[in-house]
Amino acid sequence: MHRAVRRFINIFKRKSEKDKRLITAIKTIVGSKPFNLELYRLAIKHSSVAKHNSQGLRESNERLEYLGDAILGAAVADYLFKTFPFKEEGFLTEIRSRIVNRESLNNIGKRIGLNQVVEYDQKKKGKLSHKSLYGDTLEAIVGAVYLDKGYSYCKHFIIDKLIIPYLNIDEVIKSNPNYKSKIIEWSQKENKDVKFEIISVKNEKHHREFTAQVFVDNEPLGKGFGHSKKKAEQDAAQKSCELLDLD
Amino acid sequence: MHRAVRRFINIFKRKSEKDKRLITAIKTIVGSKPFNLELYRLAIKHSSVAKHNSQGLRESNERLEYLGDAILGAAVADYLFKTFPFKEEGFLTEIRSRIVNRESLNNIGKRIGLNQVVEYDQKKKGKLSHKSLYGDTLEAIVGAVYLDKGYSYCKHFIIDKLIIPYLNIDEVIKSNPNYKSKIIEWSQKENKDVKFEIISVKNEKHHREFTAQVFVDNEPLGKGFGHSKKKAEQDAAQKSCELLDLD
Repeated sequence: MHRAVRRFINIFKRKSEKDKRLITAIKTIVGSKPFNLELYRLAIKHSSVAKHNSQGLRESNERLEYLGDAILGAAVADYLFKTFPFKEEGFLTEIRSRIVNRESLNNIGKRIGLNQVVEYDQKKKGKLSHKSLYGDTLEAIVGAVYLDKGYSYCKHFIIDKLIIPYLNIDEVIKSNPNYKSKIIEWSQKENKDVKFEIISVKNEKHHREFTAQVFVDNEPLGKGFGHSKKKAEQDAAQKSCELLDLD
Repeated sequence: MHRAVRRFINIFKRKSEKDKRLITAIKTIVGSKPFNLELYRLAIKHSSVAKHNSQGLRESNERLEYLGDAILGAAVADYLFKTFPFKEEGFLTEIRSRIVNRESLNNIGKRIGLNQVVEYDQKKKGKLSHKSLYGDTLEAIVGAVYLDKGYSYCKHFIIDKLIIPYLNIDEVIKSNPNYKSKIIEWSQKENKDVKFEIISVKNEKHHREFTAQVFVDNEPLGKGFGHSKKKAEQDAAQKSCELLDLD
């Protein structure tokens, strides 16, 4: 056989091996074989290894991630709505945002083994995996499952394969809320300007104590303290939430 | 007939008349008769007229609004994903947020006639209708349709009856983006602190000129100018977006 032909066949075989591995992985993660493998090939492709296609679009999982993020939000909203029939909207919104946040999705992504399948620029490994490489890929897989198998299947995949096995909802409820994002959300809803400012730093013997102040439309609201800027702001945000009666 | 019995029958008749009107309205808005009318009764009930039920939950449309908001987000995400196969994620996210924003939903809600069906405290009319009474009710109706008829029906309702007839997507694309929310979104994603500050006000002959400055992790970024605080901040945010290469 001509050497070039053999090389071509080898490349083809290698690709098939890769596809086979992907099919097995998707079967394990999602619970059934892909109908349209191309969707999942795209879902595992991080933008760091994406190439431009003929339409000038970079072929990465980012579009699927955008779609999956929305579907995930809807499925979790539905699940919480039905699981907590006597809880008010504020509770449901807060718990949902804790479930679908970056950290939580990144953890789930790691635990279902997305580190085995995601394709990314190995040189950027440390940087990417600290951020949300697995969470983003997880969202992209959700987007692929939605397009491949429809909303209903995808909703069960999200709840039964991603959320229930890896998140303890009771613990999620008990964990601390992010008061800062609550204030920002409130300010956007009420069309107010909100500012977080560090108004003083005390240098103690072994640590520093920050004082943060929340301003709403330039009026001071809650004041908070902490050993880091973040903690002081979180404390100020919590006190502001109390003052504004946001629960 | 005993007077009390007649009064009871009259109350019953009046309720039925109200239900009949609601059924007609839903048929017009949604395109088919409700299966479970109770969902729609709840969807049109603003919290200003809600009563506590035996579980201590205020029976208003807020829970349905929470659910509808998520379903709306998913349906619009899907629609844009498929309508713009060669657009990147940033474009899709931005256009989606312009479509599902309060103002836009409130307008659609008014135009499909929700002012005819929504129940609210008439004393608060001016205040409520300036805010998002109709947009919130619209989201609650979407939640009701989703529970009543499933995702697929609801998606077509959203796209074919709410979005396409009342929004010109080309115009939405051409309209100005909200750079401030773009910066805030970016800062949350990147875990940065962002602050908008008015750093100076010049009193000119006929107007005032504000200068706004965006700070990211306390480092100054874009600076902007305008005749109002809001405009100066928007300008500073736009310049920051350019500096950060967010498009």
